[in-house]
Amino acid sequence: MVKVIGLCGSLRDSATSEKALKLALAAAQSAEAEVEYLDFKQMHLPFCHGGEDYSEYPDVAVLQAKVKAADALLISTPEYHGSFSGVLKNALDLLGFEELTDKVIGLISVLGGAQNSNALNDLRTVSRWVHAWVVPEQVAIGQAWKQFDEQGQLIDPKLAERIEKLAFSVVDTAKKLR
Amino acid sequence: MVKVIGLCGSLRDSATSEKALKLALAAAQSAEAEVEYLDFKQMHLPFCHGGEDYSEYPDVAVLQAKVKAADALLISTPEYHGSFSGVLKNALDLLGFEELTDKVIGLISVLGGAQNSNALNDLRTVSRWVHAWVVPEQVAIGQAWKQFDEQGQLIDPKLAERIEKLAFSVVDTAKKLR
Amino acid sequence: MVKVIGLCGSLRDSATSEKALKLALAAAQSAEAEVEYLDFKQMHLPFCHGGEDYSEYPDVAVLQAKVKAADALLISTPEYHGSFSGVLKNALDLLGFEELTDKVIGLISVLGGAQNSNALNDLRTVSRWVHAWVVPEQVAIGQAWKQFDEQGQLIDPKLAERIEKLAFSVVDTAKKLR
Amino acid sequence: MVKVIGLCGSLRDSATSEKALKLALAAAQSAEAEVEYLDFKQMHLPFCHGGEDYSEYPDVAVLQAKVKAADALLISTPEYHGSFSGVLKNALDLLGFEELTDKVIGLISVLGGAQNSNALNDLRTVSRWVHAWVVPEQVAIGQAWKQFDEQGQLIDPKLAERIEKLAFSVVDTAKKLR
Repeated sequence: MVKVIGLCGSLRDSATSEKALKLALAAAQSAEAEVEYLDFKQMHLPFCHGGEDYSEYPDVAVLQAKVKAADALLISTPEYHGSFSGVLKNALDLLGFEELTDKVIGLISVLGGAQNSNALNDLRTVSRWVHAWVVPEQVAIGQAWKQFDEQGQLIDPKLAERIEKLAFSVVDTAKKLR
Repeated sequence: MVKVIGLCGSLRDSATSEKALKLALAAAQSAEAEVEYLDFKQMHLPFCHGGEDYSEYPDVAVLQAKVKAADALLISTPEYHGSFSGVLKNALDLLGFEELTDKVIGLISVLGGAQNSNALNDLRTVSRWVHAWVVPEQVAIGQAWKQFDEQGQLIDPKLAERIEKLAFSVVDTAKKLR
Repeated sequence: MVKVIGLCGSLRDSATSEKALKLALAAAQSAEAEVEYLDFKQMHLPFCHGGEDYSEYPDVAVLQAKVKAADALLISTPEYHGSFSGVLKNALDLLGFEELTDKVIGLISVLGGAQNSNALNDLRTVSRWVHAWVVPEQVAIGQAWKQFDEQGQLIDPKLAERIEKLAFSVVDTAKKLR
Repeated sequence: MVKVIGLCGSLRDSATSEKALKLALAAAQSAEAEVEYLDFKQMHLPFCHGGEDYSEYPDVAVLQAKVKAADALLISTPEYHGSFSGVLKNALDLLGFEELTDKVIGLISVLGGAQNSNALNDLRTVSRWVHAWVVPEQVAIGQAWKQFDEQGQLIDPKLAERIEKLAFSVVDTAKKLR
């Protein structure tokens, strides 16, 4: 069974990036993946200091172990200033080749303004650096504040389908590349 | 007088990115700029939560006020996973158009391995997004661990000269664009 | 007087990228710049072979001389496959530091689908490489096929204003950086 | 059997990018792939005009058919002005989703100066756009003019090994993703 970890770059309650991530994780689950969302709002992660010892912050070891044990990642981020969030980059900085190499990754970004792929582009460069595989499918959700209904579903069925396809591609690719 | 703020993306003591930044700030000072280094190791900055209220963390307001009052920024970052550090991105996420638009920016990155401009490229995209001006000069210091002597000076005089030119260009451009 | 050269990455007749460029050049002219459009459809440029001798193609020398003599460039390109056109990159490959360094550049892209800044991002990296100055303003025109009226004017006045501001910024910056 | 097409972004005789490509193709062949080098110096390709009809240039149809029939591409380019060559971008512009989607791609760049991954980054963005798969391995050869011996072999055995690994990864991934 393919194991998929979900990571979200926003610490905001009811963030649209988190809503999009949950839809993608549900789709992965419907494709018979085992899914888990590591909620940074519930974890106590420090700023990366570039060293090795994070024993004061046991959640760093939790993050590292869970990501290492997974086959794939679904990552969703708000686009802040034309790139992904510092919160997300800091979490990735706490991980390394040991945890990230060969992972299959699917990417989602949400934006307040018009759709743009800058945050996704930068995440691709970082993912490549650690020798992970980012699937070609990706979803950038523009004007994200008006795209979800009260149940957290996407209003536009085409967008919902793209999230689903992204998740299916991640699960399928993880099986093939294993 | 041109005011230059220095920002560093590493929290490590004696980080090479900080050494490089201090050389650049000294060069800017020698060009008669007023310089100040905002040391993130000495500040208590939170993770950006995407909202407005950071009143529990007064250093956020300090960061915002100092950057807003400056004409230019010198930014130095370690390259982590093919981009700039999450620590630095988070600090930039705490800033916005009000503080960053029209600033003149000079960029430095340090790497453990071979020289590369990925972190600088991503910082350029982010700087453009907030309508800042990044000078064409930039410095990426490869194998940074062996480039500095015990006094924190660059051993290679060509590299030292490039840092100096970067700082001079930032000061000069800030005067012209004002 | 500021001299601005216009370059367009499309060879298609009545290309939307050319229409957008002409609007930008007209705006630059209204700001008292001297403008000239170097139409690649009318020039006989070869593929860049990486050498020095293009004496069989006198238009290479024309391109080089005109760009060298200018203060600024307005560049408009269709986005093909998530980047700017090969036609435009080849023309830039025929130029070098001697012609491009210190030029002030303004960038426009047109896309058939949704707005995106990939072509502009890549043009910024290339412009930086040759030490040119790209102004922070930029315009990406999505679904370009429906944005122009029969007189070649932009239907959306906000887009028209953004083209104008881009051109004004290029002229203004060229004056300041000179 | 995996079919691999080689494309080179330089038109220069004895280009180092072509030498590197030939080494990669030989490695792919040793991994039992069927390889073919489409030499742009021997083909008569026009500038892309953004339309459909290239019947005056039959080599366009040859390029399209050969790439479409392949499983994978090895692409090598000189880095001109911080990106890949216009010659290569133009050839990719002549191709589309029909030929490129789902292809597995391996990337090499050569530079006169220090190693850098800008050309490779831009090729990754373009490859993603057409939904191709670029393997995480990549090779950027700095100061390429001094890296090859008279037989066209790489002098540094580590670089030679990296080219080999890149080719093996392309063949292996093409098998897995088929």
